[in-house]
Amino acid sequence: MRNKLSMIVREAEKIVSAGVLIIGNEILSGRTQDVNLAYIAKGLSEIGVLLREARVVPDVTDVIIAAVNELRVKFDYIFTTGGIGPTHDDITLKCVAHAFGVPWTLHSEAHSLLKNWYRDELDQLNPASLRMARAPEGAILIIDPISGAIGYRMENVFVLAGIPRIMQAMFDHLKPSLERGRPLISRSVRCNLPEDAIAQGLEEIQNRYADFDVGSYPWMEGGKFGTSLVVRGRDPQGVEAAAKEIFVLVENLGGHPAPE
Amino acid sequence: MRNKLSMIVREAEKIVSAGVLIIGNEILSGRTQDVNLAYIAKGLSEIGVLLREARVVPDVTDVIIAAVNELRVKFDYIFTTGGIGPTHDDITLKCVAHAFGVPWTLHSEAHSLLKNWYRDELDQLNPASLRMARAPEGAILIIDPISGAIGYRMENVFVLAGIPRIMQAMFDHLKPSLERGRPLISRSVRCNLPEDAIAQGLEEIQNRYADFDVGSYPWMEGGKFGTSLVVRGRDPQGVEAAAKEIFVLVENLGGHPAPE
Repeated sequence: MRNKLSMIVREAEKIVSAGVLIIGNEILSGRTQDVNLAYIAKGLSEIGVLLREARVVPDVTDVIIAAVNELRVKFDYIFTTGGIGPTHDDITLKCVAHAFGVPWTLHSEAHSLLKNWYRDELDQLNPASLRMARAPEGAILIIDPISGAIGYRMENVFVLAGIPRIMQAMFDHLKPSLERGRPLISRSVRCNLPEDAIAQGLEEIQNRYADFDVGSYPWMEGGKFGTSLVVRGRDPQGVEAAAKEIFVLVENLGGHPAPE
Repeated sequence: MRNKLSMIVREAEKIVSAGVLIIGNEILSGRTQDVNLAYIAKGLSEIGVLLREARVVPDVTDVIIAAVNELRVKFDYIFTTGGIGPTHDDITLKCVAHAFGVPWTLHSEAHSLLKNWYRDELDQLNPASLRMARAPEGAILIIDPISGAIGYRMENVFVLAGIPRIMQAMFDHLKPSLERGRPLISRSVRCNLPEDAIAQGLEEIQNRYADFDVGSYPWMEGGKFGTSLVVRGRDPQGVEAAAKEIFVLVENLGGHPAPE
């Protein structure tokens, strides 16, 4: 009985970790502002999966393979974005196949989907389009029902599109299949004090709440400035208690705290 | 004479590389949308410095130290953002000191600046504020003249603020001190064709222009879709010639190309 209980407790406390791999020269050249990371990060937070690292790499075969292989053993899940279209610079799936040591091959289910998608204009199902049906052998499809775009899951690696709307649809679709961790709860207190005024008291609170993550984020808006103080943790009561202490600290320092 | 000429040529062709290290739980939790990477990426492109990788890591000492040490030997320059304020979670400079194996110590020049900054309210120059004057021994200041915020350069590692406006001021300030590479020139052709229609012809152009980077970026805007085709390279004439070929390719396929 005790063993069973301790297993349940372990399960509830289990950390599920993730990494994001953003693939694309356009992000590293500054041509495109990435917005996929924030979307995935928020989605993972909601289900208690801890995003531990994100990387942006160029469209270079060796670099992508090395990053996939480094990250997939480090974290429970990896999400890649970009490089799964029909053009020569879309090399993500080929690289993932290489990383897993399996062939990059025509996926029969994806092929059927594409044939159905192009059914009224089958002459346009050219070798370039077919590239989107090539995947690491053994991969599972992740479909965006609206655009018809196909992503893939290869073991713990989810290969998603780069276009934000399509990436989001794919991510929302796969999200329920992920193992959940105990969600992180966060409470944020916004105030008009500068960080240096609050730093000492905040550190004392952090020290008293060592199992929680107390963060301080300065902001400037329209000539005004202040600080957002955020407590994150897995125990709701602890988070509330720490946030309450921060609230009181701000008031005692003559500031105006507000929940955020 | 030949040697001197070849040295000049090598100099002009020299690749100057960079990495970006974004430090902060708030980015990995999805609380904050990073905009610093795109700003640095654009700025580096302008001066021909090749941004090869970006990483986002949490406020965890060991992870930051490992990332700094991995990236600083891999690339000519590293730019970190975030974690240089006065609160307990601002650990970037301490980590950089550790990565270089030097003390994290009060920087006399930074200390003087802070004393001057706080001159009318010296009682507010508390231990928390002084944290911002602590840096790896031997670091050089990078100052944002508007906010008075202090960043640091430690050898090839530039430690910048996380708040975008301050980060931008620091980056603009240090940019002229960077070694320049031969800038990448880019030409972009926007068209109303889907990627799969243009993929084959585009790959042929890429193969003929092997020294250049031909990229294809699909877009969707207000129900319309199409593709941006981008040529990047160091030889302006080659870039123009490849872009011209792409223009003609799009026209031959019945599409409407436009310079972007």
